[in-house]
Amino acid sequence: MEVKISKDKLMTGITTCMRTVPSKSTMPILECILMTVQDGEIILTSNDTEMGSEIFLEADTVSDGVVAVEAKTLSAIITKMPDGEITLKTDDENEMFIKCGRSKFNIAIRDGNEFPKLNMVSRENSIKVAQEILKDAIKETIFSASVNDTNKMMTGLLLSFSDILKVVALDGHRIAIREYTIGYDGEPVKLIVPSKALQELYKTLTDGDMEIFYTDSQVAFSFDGKLIESRLIDGEFFDIDRLMHYDFNTEIKVDRQELLACVDRATLLVKEIDRKPVVFTIGENLKAEITTQLGSMSEELEIEASGNQLVIGLNPRFIIDIMRVLDDAKVSMYFVDSKTPCYIKGEGYIYVVLPIQLREGV
Amino acid sequence: MEVKISKDKLMTGITTCMRTVPSKSTMPILECILMTVQDGEIILTSNDTEMGSEIFLEADTVSDGVVAVEAKTLSAIITKMPDGEITLKTDDENEMFIKCGRSKFNIAIRDGNEFPKLNMVSRENSIKVAQEILKDAIKETIFSASVNDTNKMMTGLLLSFSDILKVVALDGHRIAIREYTIGYDGEPVKLIVPSKALQELYKTLTDGDMEIFYTDSQVAFSFDGKLIESRLIDGEFFDIDRLMHYDFNTEIKVDRQELLACVDRATLLVKEIDRKPVVFTIGENLKAEITTQLGSMSEELEIEASGNQLVIGLNPRFIIDIMRVLDDAKVSMYFVDSKTPCYIKGEGYIYVVLPIQLREGV
Repeated sequence: MEVKISKDKLMTGITTCMRTVPSKSTMPILECILMTVQDGEIILTSNDTEMGSEIFLEADTVSDGVVAVEAKTLSAIITKMPDGEITLKTDDENEMFIKCGRSKFNIAIRDGNEFPKLNMVSRENSIKVAQEILKDAIKETIFSASVNDTNKMMTGLLLSFSDILKVVALDGHRIAIREYTIGYDGEPVKLIVPSKALQELYKTLTDGDMEIFYTDSQVAFSFDGKLIESRLIDGEFFDIDRLMHYDFNTEIKVDRQELLACVDRATLLVKEIDRKPVVFTIGENLKAEITTQLGSMSEELEIEASGNQLVIGLNPRFIIDIMRVLDDAKVSMYFVDSKTPCYIKGEGYIYVVLPIQLREGV
Repeated sequence: MEVKISKDKLMTGITTCMRTVPSKSTMPILECILMTVQDGEIILTSNDTEMGSEIFLEADTVSDGVVAVEAKTLSAIITKMPDGEITLKTDDENEMFIKCGRSKFNIAIRDGNEFPKLNMVSRENSIKVAQEILKDAIKETIFSASVNDTNKMMTGLLLSFSDILKVVALDGHRIAIREYTIGYDGEPVKLIVPSKALQELYKTLTDGDMEIFYTDSQVAFSFDGKLIESRLIDGEFFDIDRLMHYDFNTEIKVDRQELLACVDRATLLVKEIDRKPVVFTIGENLKAEITTQLGSMSEELEIEASGNQLVIGLNPRFIIDIMRVLDDAKVSMYFVDSKTPCYIKGEGYIYVVLPIQLREGV
């Protein structure tokens, strides 16, 4: 095979493709990028068995071919090449010749046919959605998904498509629910996508269109000449409507930035491993307090309050995660009592946070 | 004690003082910053037994006192405080009260008298030098000092003060020598300062004046309201003049940026652990080649050459380190033969690099 392509274009493609190269695999060939040269195109493929990418790059192809190249080495070489046109050439199955300007490399390659290609999703079923919407949806919910997979379902995000896109993430201690108007008019579709795949997808999204293809077991996101594919999590997602109740006894409105800065300060005294609550005492003001081995902190915030007075312990990390992704200048928080989840609700979003039980003297 | 000071000023002082707080010490009190409040000043002191800092901050002192505060906790709290005036107050020896705006912290403190203070250098002997010169001197030589201390002397930099400042660093495989005009007219002074201390000092230097105090065993750098102190390395530094010989057979001039980029590319194929040489073949051009398990690379650079043709193997990391700190558009390299050190010389600098023996077929 022989092909010429600009350094920048190749570099961008490799960077995206690298996202689904496993850093260490029991199948060493998966640490490679598959490079397919055909019909005026280079296709870069990677696959970490759970998810994969195909990147399509226009190129000046001289002769076709398929080879697998160790991803880290390829990426490092292309990064440091001088700007200009890069020539990639193989004479046999053992070596690839890479040239740019006066700089020449020869690196070991592997037979492209050994590479386990993605089992591509058929293009029968598709949903169109703006990349920006999916980007927001991921950013604003993903932190609520579980990071450890004792409960596999909790490591996924529910993407529910109808005239609105509803996204749900939960980890047993909190729930994030967001809705976005997308005007999709096909059959309603529910996909449970691993948060790890969405995290990688998030880094690649820009602001153009996107088409989502899906089957019962797989989903593929097609945009900007890229195809990012992932397995779906199998099963029924949690029935969160059952968890929602709205008989609140206390409602407050608080400045979001002030609350964020205050709770952020409270975490200074919390070591990673602790599950120390920040204690909110809600009266005329909101008093935030925390006490740990390192010391204690207290701070008062002005609020608009209605309903009962209340003392409740919350995980400061959860409050920070939510306040960081909201845009509203003021946020509304709703409480039942100190043992019932706290709700943070506004236009298009509901966040639910379970309280931490307060012991005497905490 | 009680004292008020602006957040910014205190933060800057703590950041500098933190540089000489050991991250882990067998003496836990050394993980503290000693805070001395007296006569309109806060003095922050830290000490990692090899080196230490004293930072002098003007402040609005209400009552004097001396306490030791866990450095990481103090730093984290002050960083996240809102902008404004911070009040620090202690009522007894167990707790410090920190207040800024509506935010209040109480943190554990320790008795300041337990803190092993620096054994301060007397101010009898001093040298004045611009911070910028010392900053350049450190940056342009320190990479040549040894990082492991099988030979303690090699972990230090020789600072030799007369009308010029001459700095020497070496690690057994390379030597860096730089000279700077400083116009010091006192008795010549030679100080062997641990490179670790100079590295921390480097991060703190700005562009003002500096005074250096020294004894036989210690040195203190005084500038911008700070005092950074270090032990000296005891003994005679290597007689490098004895190592210098100037009967070269080959001389080349090469574009510095091109050589840097070329050798940098060569390192792509070198794993950290290897000691693979980049092989320079010097004829009409300079051909740089490297071959490793990962593949091979070759590149030709235009040069001005005089003298014999030559093949020599050099550690690419060493060449990169030197090319990065030089300013010259073109650099001159001098060679005797493939087994004799290579010299890179110019106005005010000499770098010496030992070659790597080439085996058949490398």
